Amino acid sequence: MSEKYVKSEMVLHESFMKKALDLALNGKYYTSPNPMVGCIVVKDKKIISQGYHRAYGEPHAEANALKPKYIDFSGADLYVTLEPCLHYGKTPSCTSKIISSGIKRVFIATLDPNPKMNGKSVEILKYAGIEVYTGILEKEARFINRHFFKAMEKSMPWLIYKCAMTLDGKTADHNFKSKYISSVKSRKYVHELRAECDAIIVGYRTAIFDDPLLNIRLKGVQKKVNRVIIDPKAALPKDLMVFNTPNEGHTILVIQKGFRNKVTDQIESQGVEVLEVEEKNFYVDLMKELFKKNLIKILLEGGGSLACHMLKNRLIDELNFFIAPKILGGKNSPTPFSGAGFEIDQNTVVLDSLKTKKIGTDILITSLVKYN
Amino acid sequence: MSEKYVKSEMVLHESFMKKALDLALNGKYYTSPNPMVGCIVVKDKKIISQGYHRAYGEPHAEANALKPKYIDFSGADLYVTLEPCLHYGKTPSCTSKIISSGIKRVFIATLDPNPKMNGKSVEILKYAGIEVYTGILEKEARFINRHFFKAMEKSMPWLIYKCAMTLDGKTADHNFKSKYISSVKSRKYVHELRAECDAIIVGYRTAIFDDPLLNIRLKGVQKKVNRVIIDPKAALPKDLMVFNTPNEGHTILVIQKGFRNKVTDQIESQGVEVLEVEEKNFYVDLMKELFKKNLIKILLEGGGSLACHMLKNRLIDELNFFIAPKILGGKNSPTPFSGAGFEIDQNTVVLDSLKTKKIGTDILITSLVKYN
Repeated sequence: MSEKYVKSEMVLHESFMKKALDLALNGKYYTSPNPMVGCIVVKDKKIISQGYHRAYGEPHAEANALKPKYIDFSGADLYVTLEPCLHYGKTPSCTSKIISSGIKRVFIATLDPNPKMNGKSVEILKYAGIEVYTGILEKEARFINRHFFKAMEKSMPWLIYKCAMTLDGKTADHNFKSKYISSVKSRKYVHELRAECDAIIVGYRTAIFDDPLLNIRLKGVQKKVNRVIIDPKAALPKDLMVFNTPNEGHTILVIQKGFRNKVTDQIESQGVEVLEVEEKNFYVDLMKELFKKNLIKILLEGGGSLACHMLKNRLIDELNFFIAPKILGGKNSPTPFSGAGFEIDQNTVVLDSLKTKKIGTDILITSLVKYN
Repeated sequence: MSEKYVKSEMVLHESFMKKALDLALNGKYYTSPNPMVGCIVVKDKKIISQGYHRAYGEPHAEANALKPKYIDFSGADLYVTLEPCLHYGKTPSCTSKIISSGIKRVFIATLDPNPKMNGKSVEILKYAGIEVYTGILEKEARFINRHFFKAMEKSMPWLIYKCAMTLDGKTADHNFKSKYISSVKSRKYVHELRAECDAIIVGYRTAIFDDPLLNIRLKGVQKKVNRVIIDPKAALPKDLMVFNTPNEGHTILVIQKGFRNKVTDQIESQGVEVLEVEEKNFYVDLMKELFKKNLIKILLEGGGSLACHMLKNRLIDELNFFIAPKILGGKNSPTPFSGAGFEIDQNTVVLDSLKTKKIGTDILITSLVKYN
């Protein structure tokens, strides 16, 4: 086989895997805490079937792709964005389904990070006489499920800090008025972000200044998101919107152990879950508690003080900053992170994979956070 | 002539004008206070000659393009990015040169904003029997010389505020250490920006904290830039680098009238020009004074307090913000604009034409400032 031939083969495999990745993204609002997975089946270089994991509790991508009984899968190639499962409830595992379907070759983007899996299915498929190739668009496949990989590898949620600021880095004016910093299009995009997450977190200042509803207002999307309010000293009043709209999503009020009071009890009686966390490792422990509740992809929506605590505790994984074409200025106007801040020589927080995207008149800068 | 034909003709004219615009940019470091101008001559759809204005005091673009005696220009088309001049020193004007060359058609991107010109040459060319077409890539032609257009139309310099900040909008850490916020590539790019300008302005805090040299360190570029230090109360010490390096560029110290003192005199004796400005309209008047000195494209390099004064006085025309992939945080860390700031409902300052560009690991956001 000439090298040129191998290269063109690789281009073909990658283009099919790219299609499987695009398919996977269709599940973005509903699969968590499962990963998004896409699968396509190819025969004679043509796609003969496809499927994706639609929602948590529903069939896997491979099961959906191999379902049609009128299709002859024998000798076909299967492309899947994540290693097929070995055991799944009462129906056979995806690995068994692949073996019994007559598939000849399996292309896998990335192995399952679950230590119980991590290549086991590959061995079994190979043992069954199937050719298996792994690592095709692996980086991309890990990226779309970066929250899932972190959950599996670190047992902690993936935290995205979203914030809207002016070009000069202000999240509100000097009177702390923050309404309509970003454009209508950006605000719509935030609802898409919310819908991709399991929970939204805000600090008590944001809760009281903005009195937000923190729900998902997105045409055609029925999902309800968990609303997490961080109020260490339990100082928030019971009449906030988020405490009185149980139909818009479950609310969790996080307070420090020892600060429960009459108002907290009242808020609880309104249907809000009260989570008490020890003072010592407050921010790390509260994230651990949220992880235990299967909340693995979380959107932090402010404010600067909470974001600073989260960053100092190395809990923020990703930044989504909407930059509006405005200037607010002001020595005392709030910025994305408050608190004491870092020193420049420490170089504590460096950002990786900066990307820009135009959204209406705004610019969205996304990046991953690297802790030294 | 069918509409389709006209369209394809237009594409051709625009592509030749684009080439003339690219040529014009070659003069970017040396033409000020003249505009950058490019010119190409086309016969049978082929470029037969070209020229650009290389430097202030040297021949114009048209003169350079029409210079070669061995070329027959009769019947040719001439594309020029700015209306040809009518009078120029002891040699004939570009308009006369075009007429005597035998050029048949002249395509002009934009008219000369000088009220004494503004279409006069077009009339004369037409009177001489030449076909003249104006407005081809006019927006682009005005954009490359936006400083020149402002100078002609408003008799004020074009002011670009350049600043390097972290993604969270900090220009230095809470100790006001600002060294190396942006990458090596961005810092090199700043020297290119400096070289495109007639002067660099900094406030007294930047002058004393950073003690910058404010020169141009760019391989192959010999240009020296004027260094303008704004020190209203004349409080700066005489031993700053910028006051003691006359070979690196002329320095202008701007103080408020009535604040001249012994140190000011000493600084003056070191070869620094001292400019005294009335307190009342200090910032506007100082810009008017710089304009009188033929400084029409100026780079403001900080700090936040001076930038705030300039913005409040509607003197900043353009922003060049380098965003580094870092987080510094800190409630008291400096940001691009300090002072009192604007209120959000006023919507005083809105930015136009936001553009992003990757420079090394940084993102450069450029925009124009619109005052309501």
